[in-house]
Amino acid sequence: MSLTVYLSGEIHTDWREQIIEGAYGLDVHFESPVTDHAASDDCGVAILGEEPNKYWHDHKGAMVNAIRTRKGIVGADVVVVRFGEKYKQWNAAFDAGYAAALGKSLIILSQPEHQHPLKEVHAAALAVAEEPVQVVEILRYVLTGKLPG
Amino acid sequence: MSLTVYLSGEIHTDWREQIIEGAYGLDVHFESPVTDHAASDDCGVAILGEEPNKYWHDHKGAMVNAIRTRKGIVGADVVVVRFGEKYKQWNAAFDAGYAAALGKSLIILSQPEHQHPLKEVHAAALAVAEEPVQVVEILRYVLTGKLPG
Amino acid sequence: MSLTVYLSGEIHTDWREQIIEGAYGLDVHFESPVTDHAASDDCGVAILGEEPNKYWHDHKGAMVNAIRTRKGIVGADVVVVRFGEKYKQWNAAFDAGYAAALGKSLIILSQPEHQHPLKEVHAAALAVAEEPVQVVEILRYVLTGKLPG
Amino acid sequence: MSLTVYLSGEIHTDWREQIIEGAYGLDVHFESPVTDHAASDDCGVAILGEEPNKYWHDHKGAMVNAIRTRKGIVGADVVVVRFGEKYKQWNAAFDAGYAAALGKSLIILSQPEHQHPLKEVHAAALAVAEEPVQVVEILRYVLTGKLPG
Amino acid sequence: MSLTVYLSGEIHTDWREQIIEGAYGLDVHFESPVTDHAASDDCGVAILGEEPNKYWHDHKGAMVNAIRTRKGIVGADVVVVRFGEKYKQWNAAFDAGYAAALGKSLIILSQPEHQHPLKEVHAAALAVAEEPVQVVEILRYVLTGKLPG
Amino acid sequence: MSLTVYLSGEIHTDWREQIIEGAYGLDVHFESPVTDHAASDDCGVAILGEEPNKYWHDHKGAMVNAIRTRKGIVGADVVVVRFGEKYKQWNAAFDAGYAAALGKSLIILSQPEHQHPLKEVHAAALAVAEEPVQVVEILRYVLTGKLPG
Amino acid sequence: MSLTVYLSGEIHTDWREQIIEGAYGLDVHFESPVTDHAASDDCGVAILGEEPNKYWHDHKGAMVNAIRTRKGIVGADVVVVRFGEKYKQWNAAFDAGYAAALGKSLIILSQPEHQHPLKEVHAAALAVAEEPVQVVEILRYVLTGKLPG
Amino acid sequence: MSLTVYLSGEIHTDWREQIIEGAYGLDVHFESPVTDHAASDDCGVAILGEEPNKYWHDHKGAMVNAIRTRKGIVGADVVVVRFGEKYKQWNAAFDAGYAAALGKSLIILSQPEHQHPLKEVHAAALAVAEEPVQVVEILRYVLTGKLPG
Repeated sequence: MSLTVYLSGEIHTDWREQIIEGAYGLDVHFESPVTDHAASDDCGVAILGEEPNKYWHDHKGAMVNAIRTRKGIVGADVVVVRFGEKYKQWNAAFDAGYAAALGKSLIILSQPEHQHPLKEVHAAALAVAEEPVQVVEILRYVLTGKLPG
Repeated sequence: MSLTVYLSGEIHTDWREQIIEGAYGLDVHFESPVTDHAASDDCGVAILGEEPNKYWHDHKGAMVNAIRTRKGIVGADVVVVRFGEKYKQWNAAFDAGYAAALGKSLIILSQPEHQHPLKEVHAAALAVAEEPVQVVEILRYVLTGKLPG
Repeated sequence: MSLTVYLSGEIHTDWREQIIEGAYGLDVHFESPVTDHAASDDCGVAILGEEPNKYWHDHKGAMVNAIRTRKGIVGADVVVVRFGEKYKQWNAAFDAGYAAALGKSLIILSQPEHQHPLKEVHAAALAVAEEPVQVVEILRYVLTGKLPG
Repeated sequence: MSLTVYLSGEIHTDWREQIIEGAYGLDVHFESPVTDHAASDDCGVAILGEEPNKYWHDHKGAMVNAIRTRKGIVGADVVVVRFGEKYKQWNAAFDAGYAAALGKSLIILSQPEHQHPLKEVHAAALAVAEEPVQVVEILRYVLTGKLPG
Repeated sequence: MSLTVYLSGEIHTDWREQIIEGAYGLDVHFESPVTDHAASDDCGVAILGEEPNKYWHDHKGAMVNAIRTRKGIVGADVVVVRFGEKYKQWNAAFDAGYAAALGKSLIILSQPEHQHPLKEVHAAALAVAEEPVQVVEILRYVLTGKLPG
Repeated sequence: MSLTVYLSGEIHTDWREQIIEGAYGLDVHFESPVTDHAASDDCGVAILGEEPNKYWHDHKGAMVNAIRTRKGIVGADVVVVRFGEKYKQWNAAFDAGYAAALGKSLIILSQPEHQHPLKEVHAAALAVAEEPVQVVEILRYVLTGKLPG
Repeated sequence: MSLTVYLSGEIHTDWREQIIEGAYGLDVHFESPVTDHAASDDCGVAILGEEPNKYWHDHKGAMVNAIRTRKGIVGADVVVVRFGEKYKQWNAAFDAGYAAALGKSLIILSQPEHQHPLKEVHAAALAVAEEPVQVVEILRYVLTGKLPG
Repeated sequence: MSLTVYLSGEIHTDWREQIIEGAYGLDVHFESPVTDHAASDDCGVAILGEEPNKYWHDHKGAMVNAIRTRKGIVGADVVVVRFGEKYKQWNAAFDAGYAAALGKSLIILSQPEHQHPLKEVHAAALAVAEEPVQVVEILRYVLTGKLPG
């Protein structure tokens, strides 16, 4: 068995790298959104022309990013969504809903203090973890049947 | 033409009532989640038995609420999602993602200060409004071809 | 909101009647398999001709019953599956799997002594109850937002 | 033609090995659930944290195992489900229902004494066999047109 | 439970009337193709203009008839296909394949002398009957649980 | 049999009225886009706020109109698309493609001088007519089996 | 572009070999049913046990063959169905209907004397040819844009 | 991440070559319709036999071309549709509608003077560009996160 895993959500810490490195040697193919914050914000106007209005500036960028996000979620077996400590992170929750509606296996990576507001998102997940290493352990178990320790 | 509209999101103001009353006389059938906050939080344990652990308390409730939410979104032609001023509102964004993946027509009701963090959600919507009356005007126009004023 | 609910599984006690009577006044439409055990076993050969071989006797009946079962599950918003105390009940678990794959909201009605062998079935459900009255309370809450007591 | 075959059900005998070895040389890719019983029971708590309540202990494990099971069934052309002599085996019947609803070609491996309680499961199958070698012969015939003999 | 039943196939005997009359009082809605042979052959050119070439004459008619056939099959819970004694009846077998691919419950009404060439069609059916009254008995049983006699 | 028919395309002549009046007495439910050209162009900005840039002015309107168009096409059994004599009419061809991909029965109403550039659209249709009365005759035949004259 | 082509229908002449040889050098992957008539008729009982009743003998075989046929059609981009001069060939028409319902590109290979009874099948096809070489020419054109001659 | 991109629409300029060359080194697989105008017009009759009537001449060709077009759109992650300066280009708009209904990421390449008549097509797109280089820049950004300049 091999797995394609899409890593959605928070882009300010190195959780993706931790998972990808931890999963070294496993038959997993990882995909992610563009994690360069500035490029992600400006891609629409940088390519398709300036917009004086911030709404359309953001809109053009979000649409271009959606090409990658959709491809990533639709092609994934497992979608991991990490909620970080800061920001609204509505795009993360949106991706979780999108993945759930498509029947993808959903793993949520979140902190205990967010447990209550994330309860509907957690209820759609097959696993809720706090640390990236737990995601690695899930992937290892799913692919090899081996438990940690 | 008639429309079934699911009103998702913020439950602390009377925006649903404003839309439903404003749409009086139009051929619209509205559905909503349970908007009694306490009942919504406790429904799982109240019916299926207490849980000492808050996570499972919330989980049981979120799962029972999902019966209604899924039915509401799957059966809707249009899903309106309102983002209020407070709270994380990840369930609102989750519903928006879920609706988008199912190809539902999405209308977002949000405030200008949330424009940037909602850009991915907005990019999946057919309309972004600030006031409930605008949603009413959209429904009236879609059903009758009549514009306001 | 109205719900169509398919009541699958055990046919030797009056749990269906308890739920249907308990839900009196709620906007629920119930469907069930044929619960006359003898008719259910013999329908194939009674209509389509005798079979000397018990396998084909059963096969013809199971195929005719599948016309009703499929229609019931495919048309349902909620599928309730009850596991009783006796028998193999593989058809109940089969129906649960069928419903889960179609994305139906699944409620399992089972006893604590069956918790471990039902864990995969429970994991696909939005609610696990022990008593028919709990199913009624779930339906009432989902439709009206009212909790028991 | 090549086939991807998911081997679901009983994990206490070597039927999977018999099929995989028997099919040596055929263009078949086999997938299976984790067949280490202890690991399968404990994977949830071992990775995601202890649960004092046996229900949630089992639940967490069943959800993690579902990542592999879903991937296996969704990706398969043929799903073989074996019912052994012991245990409730509701997860096997659940997998059969899940596979049937997705339109997978279903082969059931079962014993004559279980014929009656399995009649609904058999009715959804394209073949009902008693011995692993018969599954191998089916796969060989489907892929090469050669009959045993 | 109510059923929508599409009656496909042979148009030269009164089998449809026998079924519809036999099912009087049952909650069944029947649909059929146009059974006026001449109108069915000529509808294309009669409405859309003459064709000197018989192929296109037939083609235009078959396309117009497809509007009704598709609607009938797509909207049906049960598709009954009758194979008569004469003619090629490839349209009947085509409808059976179309219905099978959509997961419709298929009942075949055919004669013993056609058993061998119909074996692939029979293998996709939930019931194979010889007489219209058997179809009525199936519908009655499926809807009411009552067996004949 | 009843039919739901969506009337897409040209909005400058009374072809919709001719069809609706001609079909009087038939069991057809008609839906259409908003055919008030000015309202259709301005609906976005009239409800959701002015846009200085013509592109976004048009964009907002097209998105709001899509709520109605999608609902109309998705809910239809038959989609009729009329190509008139003037204008680019790319929205008409877009609707035809959208309907074709969803497997809707497509009827094209067009003029002989447009035969060549419409050949790909025609190839996806079940009927190509020149006059609204022919569409009425098709609907009458499909619903009643009666041919004109 | 590469194509996967399923060659369904008549098994008594060498039309499949003509197409496969003619397409040598093109990026086409061909699949076919088992074309050994005796093996195809007896596969069920040869593997799964004798049946005294010819109906069940045929049934078991048809079900085993369906594993290959379904895989072949579901995995194909193009389904070619050949109708020969003899026999009922209802399985060929069934396959055509199955393929059409799944939206596969359908090419029919048939003789002029069968034009009228095949008109509904032809109406679902993108090409109707008389000779295998025409199928090769279609495949070459679709893949390379080159016309014969 | 890799992308499969279908390049639909205008066939009289070298825009496809510009994009393909510009994307050199990116993990993109491009597909296109047959762009040899004469071959595309005549493929049906050249292979399947002459038609005296221009309508059927065109029809046969459009059907054969649909084999390639459908395969191209269904298999694509991204569909780029270019509208040129001349001709009706209804096939381009048809492809855009077809792709949109299948949920493909749509990029439109068009000129400012066509903005108004293309507004419904633009509203279904994730990007609207004027120059082929912008499409290349979008593909580069989506695949690598790198912006131009």
